[in-house]
This record gives sequence, structure tokens and C-alpha cells, in this order.
Amino acid sequence: MGPVFGIVVAGGAGTRFGQPKQFADLAGRPVVEWSVRACRSVCDTVVLVLPAGHLDLARSAGLYCADLVVAGGPTRADSVRSGLRAVPADADVVVVHDAARPLARAELFSRVLGALDDGAPAAVCPVAVTDTVKRVRPSGAGQVVAETLRREELVSVQTPQAFRADVLRRAHEGAPDATDDAALVEAAGGTVVVVAGDPDNLKLTTPADLARAVLLVGG
Amino acid sequence: MGPVFGIVVAGGAGTRFGQPKQFADLAGRPVVEWSVRACRSVCDTVVLVLPAGHLDLARSAGLYCADLVVAGGPTRADSVRSGLRAVPADADVVVVHDAARPLARAELFSRVLGALDDGAPAAVCPVAVTDTVKRVRPSGAGQVVAETLRREELVSVQTPQAFRADVLRRAHEGAPDATDDAALVEAAGGTVVVVAGDPDNLKLTTPADLARAVLLVGG
Repeated sequence: MGPVFGIVVAGGAGTRFGQPKQFADLAGRPVVEWSVRACRSVCDTVVLVLPAGHLDLARSAGLYCADLVVAGGPTRADSVRSGLRAVPADADVVVVHDAARPLARAELFSRVLGALDDGAPAAVCPVAVTDTVKRVRPSGAGQVVAETLRREELVSVQTPQAFRADVLRRAHEGAPDATDDAALVEAAGGTVVVVAGDPDNLKLTTPADLARAVLLVGG
Repeated sequence: MGPVFGIVVAGGAGTRFGQPKQFADLAGRPVVEWSVRACRSVCDTVVLVLPAGHLDLARSAGLYCADLVVAGGPTRADSVRSGLRAVPADADVVVVHDAARPLARAELFSRVLGALDDGAPAAVCPVAVTDTVKRVRPSGAGQVVAETLRREELVSVQTPQAFRADVLRRAHEGAPDATDDAALVEAAGGTVVVVAGDPDNLKLTTPADLARAVLLVGG
């Protein structure tokens, strides 16, 4: 495997991160630094994508252990593309990781990379869906249930996600939008291999999640 | 509206509750008592379904504020049916609630009942799905992504769920299995109306969830 680049995404100021949770303290280090360090376990170089207004802060904080920091765009997909533009042409593999998942273990990164070693063009590490999920449809002024989905076929997606660099670049051509990068590869007809995720790979979206993360790291 | 009965389900010892989390302490009261009290906000009578081995303990604990306690069955659906058998024939409405959701607010119960007042045969109060959900399919020895679902059409189901009593009884005829009661009504061709849920209506499945619940109740 050639050079592996990591893109840690924390770019969407005010939309996904109304409050800058990626800079909150988690057991003595900013959340974003945990995420960058996690990514570093398998990546030769890590690009951190931040809201434009936070670049100076990042410089004064030693780039949160990233190799370079770039400004993100209005959507998550835009921010990934900002990161991709900083990845050199000779990159073999790109791993995309959300800054809001500071607890991703090195083992998880190794697992998605392992799938690429085995020939997959893209790999994700989702977890089982534990709640019953229904599809709804409009009815009158409200909504009714259209269908209860077969839970055993569903997974809930996380990051890291690993891609052959050319596959990810092609998937982002034309600046499509999506909630995760694998969906863009799927839309482009690519195969996305599923490896086991980790339920403890928490996404921080509320203060309660941060409290739970503190418990998980034993802080 | 005629008599409203509540069924609080905590019946599946060893499967859903390997550890009896429904008896864990939450700010000075057992979890199950929180759930029964929540249900009581709109129900004339509350039936609590417990593992058979816990009935004596329940009696010594004042039935955890329920009106009667019955023994559950091997699956959640079996336990709901145990509760249903204790609901008298003249019941108008049955509200089913999971003991593992002690933080359900009175307002949430009122909302599902309100939909029945407005003519719905059944009502649920799910929350938006915040993660990207994919459908997977087997491929070789592993799995690949079959499809990324349209997140804006998906909801994650919670309890309480409210039903016209005859609708719920008919849905349970023949002892079908399902992860929630609304799915049985759907399978029987009934309409299930969707009202807004509450993301703080936490389901306790791990010790970390209990810690989060303690934070939410300010304990």
C-alpha cells in the first residue's frame, strides 16, 4: 500500500457544529486532537479541515497534531473536498474521519484499511442499529408509518471510512452532497465493503455525549 | 375517551435485561418505578409486566406504584400479551411503554393519546434518525452496502405507543413477534400515526445510559 492520507473533518461551523464541540476539553485535550491522533495511528499524513475562522487558533494550538490545516466549506461534503485538494496526487489511500468521533480506536482504522488491502475500493465500519427504524410518509397535515424496516439488514454508519484515493476523488466529482462519503461511492456505482464497527466510537453531538466520552476514557 | 390502561413492559429476563437494569437506582427510585409513574400521568390503571422471578420482590416494593403486576413471557411481544390479558374487556385505549424508558414525559404520553382522540387507531412518537443508515447484503464471506437510506424519511421508534384496545388485541392475535407493537398493527393493515417524540426519552441499555439519565434528571 502506498502513502495513506487522513482527512479529519470539522469544517461546518454553525451548521453541524453550532457550538464548537470539536474544541471542547476531553480529559485534558481538545476533542479534535483526540480525533487527529486516532487517525494518525494508520495515516502517514493527516489533513485537518476546520471552519475558516478557527485557522489562527489551530496554528497557536500546534495544529492539534495534524500535519496541515485547511478551511472547510458550507457542507460536510464541501469540507471533505477541501481536505482532498490538500492530498497530493500520489496518495494511494484516503481515510476520512469526523472530528466529532474522538474515541475511534487504532484497531478500527486498521480494520477499514485491511479491507482495502484485501482489494475493496472503499470500506466502512458501521454498527448494528439497536432501535426499530420505520419509514414514514406524509398523510394529511401529519405523518403515518409507511413501513417498519428489517432491523437485521440495517447498519448505522460511522467514521473512519477508507477509500482508494482515485475512487474517492471520482465520487466527489461535480461536488455532490451526501451525509457520508461512502454514499457518494455507492452513487457512482462503487462497491463499499462493510467491516465491524465499535459501539464505543461515540459521536459527540450533545453535552451528555461529552460526559459519556469522559466516562469512556476514564477521565 | 373511555378507560385508558397502561402496560409497562420489563418482562424478558435474561434476553433484553440480562442484568436487571429496570431495578437499578435512578436518583433514589428504581428505574421501573419512574416508568410506571410516567405512564400513570395519562392512564387510569397501570399493569406492570415483570420477569416471573421478580414478582415477590415487586410485591415487597409496593408494585413500584403499578396497580397490578403480572409475569412476562420469553419475548417482548409475549410480555405485552401477558399485560393485555390483564386489561379488562371494557378498556378503550391501551398505552404500551418500556420500563427501560424512565424519562418519558407526561407531555409525550398526552401527545400519543391526543392522536387517538383525533381518530387514529394507533400512534407512535419516534425521533429523527441522526446517523446515516445503510442496508447491507451478504457478499462472499462478508457484507457490502446495498443502499444508503433516505435519512429524512426515517424515524427511530420509542415508547409510549398508544392503541385503541381492540386494534392492539387484534394485532396480537396468533402471537406474532415484532420489536414493537406498532409493527404488528402495520402488519395487520392498520394505520399508525406519527407524532413528535423526545430525544431525551432515553432507553437504558448500558451503564453509560444510566449515568446519562442521572444527568438528565439532575440527580
